[in-house]
Formats: sequence, C-alpha cells, structure tokens
Amino acid sequence: MPYINIRVTDEQLTKEQKQKLIAGATQLVVDILDKNPETTHVIIDEVPIDNWGVKGVQYSTLKK
Amino acid sequence: MPYINIRVTDEQLTKEQKQKLIAGATQLVVDILDKNPETTHVIIDEVPIDNWGVKGVQYSTLKK
Amino acid sequence: MPYINIRVTDEQLTKEQKQKLIAGATQLVVDILDKNPETTHVIIDEVPIDNWGVKGVQYSTLKK
Amino acid sequence: MPYINIRVTDEQLTKEQKQKLIAGATQLVVDILDKNPETTHVIIDEVPIDNWGVKGVQYSTLKK
Amino acid sequence: MPYINIRVTDEQLTKEQKQKLIAGATQLVVDILDKNPETTHVIIDEVPIDNWGVKGVQYSTLKK
Amino acid sequence: MPYINIRVTDEQLTKEQKQKLIAGATQLVVDILDKNPETTHVIIDEVPIDNWGVKGVQYSTLKK
Repeated sequence: MPYINIRVTDEQLTKEQKQKLIAGATQLVVDILDKNPETTHVIIDEVPIDNWGVKGVQYSTLKK
Repeated sequence: MPYINIRVTDEQLTKEQKQKLIAGATQLVVDILDKNPETTHVIIDEVPIDNWGVKGVQYSTLKK
Repeated sequence: MPYINIRVTDEQLTKEQKQKLIAGATQLVVDILDKNPETTHVIIDEVPIDNWGVKGVQYSTLKK
Repeated sequence: MPYINIRVTDEQLTKEQKQKLIAGATQLVVDILDKNPETTHVIIDEVPIDNWGVKGVQYSTLKK
Repeated sequence: MPYINIRVTDEQLTKEQKQKLIAGATQLVVDILDKNPETTHVIIDEVPIDNWGVKGVQYSTLKK
Repeated sequence: MPYINIRVTDEQLTKEQKQKLIAGATQLVVDILDKNPETTHVIIDEVPIDNWGVKGVQYSTLKK
C-alpha cells in the first residue's frame, strides 16, 4: 500500500507524461517491493516556479 | 498540536463539506487524544484528477 | 481515494488510540465526501517532542 | 540536502516575499547545520483559505 | 529538481531495495520529464504497521 | 498559521540545533509575512541516510 508523492515545478506536464509517471512509479514498488498495485497511490504536485527554490534562489530566476 | 493533512481528488468540494472535514478531523484528535483544538491545524489538498493515480492509472481515466 | 496524514507529537499513543484515529478519519471522508473506504489510507506520524515547535519553542520545553 | 516545505494560507504573497522566504530558509540550514545550499530545496505551498482550518473552523471564517 | 517521497509500511526493507527504489524513481523523472538527476531527491519513509490504515483498519490487523 | 516541515538526513542533530531551527524558521514567517508565532508550527524530520537519495544514489553511499 505504498503512497508516492512526486513534486515537480509546474512546467506544463502533459496528461500523457503524468500517466507515464504514475505507471512507472507504481511498477517500481511492484517490482522491487512486491507491493499490490491495487492499493498503490501516486500523487503528482505541480509547484509554481516562483514557489520552488534551490541554492536560495527562486527557480523562476534560476531558469533565466 | 496535531497537524492533519487530507488529500482528495479535486471534484468540486463545497465550502460546507470542507468545513465539516475540518471540524470532524479536529474533533477526532480532541476526543481520542485529548488534544487542544486551539492548536490543531487541518489542511485539505485538492489534487487534479490527472495528477492522482491508483493501480498505475490516472483517476481521470479510472472514472470513465 | 483520500490520503490522510495525521502528525502528532510522540507521546506513547496506544495501538487502540491509533486504530480509533484510523477508523474515525476514514469514516469522516465516507460520511462527508462519500468516498470508498477500500482505498482510503490514513498514516499517523509520531514526531519526537524535540522536533516539533510552536511559538518558536520546542514542545519538549513548552510542556515543562 | 535539506528539503523545506513552507505551507501558508493563500493570501497573495508577492514574488519578492517568496524569494525572501526561500533565501532565509536556505540560510538557516547553512548557518545552523552547515548544509550545502546547492542541494537545499525550499517549496512554498499556498493553501486556499477555505482549505485550512484551526480550532475546527475554516480560516476564511476566522478572518472575518 | 523533483522531490519524490515514497511512503511504505515498515517491513524490513533491505539497504539494496532502498537503493533500487532511489535509482528507479530518479530514472523515471530523467526519462519522462528530462529532469537533472543531480538535483533529484528521493526520500523513503518507513511507517510502523500500527500507524498505517486502509479500509479503516490498521495494517497490523489486516495482515493477520 | 504557517506550517513548516524541515527534512534533513539523520546525523545526530543536537537538541540545541533543533531549537535554533524552530526559532529561526518561526522568525522568518513573522518577519517576512507578518504571521503570528503563536500558531506557527515547525516540524523537523530526521531521515535515515539509507532512505535519502540524490543523483540516484543513497546518501549513505555518497558520503563515503
């Protein structure tokens, strides 16, 4: 019954990319931990680029 | 001082439903753990249905 | 398919208290949002009292 | 390699306030824990005021 | 710069299983989203089986 | 009423370092966002070094 939370910057992920992330992350815990996919949840959070920082700087600034 | 995070798919919860969730979750930790409601926080996250998967499939597809 | 995360200070919750929290939180989303309990997950995190602060002060100090 | 998540009610934080939070939180772990800012991530979540409750009441109601 | 949090019940994962989860989850965001592995973080949380519930019941009870 | 979660690798933080993190993080949201410290919560999670990966590799291996 794993719960997997993937947080990425919000840069227009397509519906297909999200589906691939969900399928891939679920397969990981099935393959490595023998978990049941029926109860495996994956949640993708898309974070605005002004709201994510690394090295002390907003990602919206780093990208420039 | 509990912190309670409720994550649900984004399907147009009403303001009243949210208020009931907040009141109910707070009451739970008051009743069961004798916590102080003054410092009990409840946060509801509404997750887009393309961003939540179970069984390796997006909820937006599962619903069909 | 809600996911509910309850974070409390680690003060020797009994197994029975945890079961009550899990049952109660699940019932909340069944009653208020008509969610399916089969796919509702509740996770309780017990946080050491040196690791939780409010008002800028460790809970281990506040309790004294 | 700390990960810092700051959750606040959504009340129109400016881009500059967010930058200050990111810089300040990063500096904290550099100063206190001697962490490397290069791999320190800060994420700010802005939560709608109907979705955050304290004392069992929605923040949108408490504010009135 | 994704952040991936994998929460599973605490059932004696080996160090090797954890390494496989970390490598696999990182590869996912590299392959699907073209993210930089240098700044991709994966955190595994092992949750005691009394603290995780599904269907309103503790996992420690469900397993019996 | 901010909620701040600081996740670091578990490397024997002292009680004093934790207190400084809690005080500093609280002060940040007071200074920058004019938040009330009374309802500001800070939680520090110490993550085992086998459970945190970056660049696809466990931190316990990276440190060697």
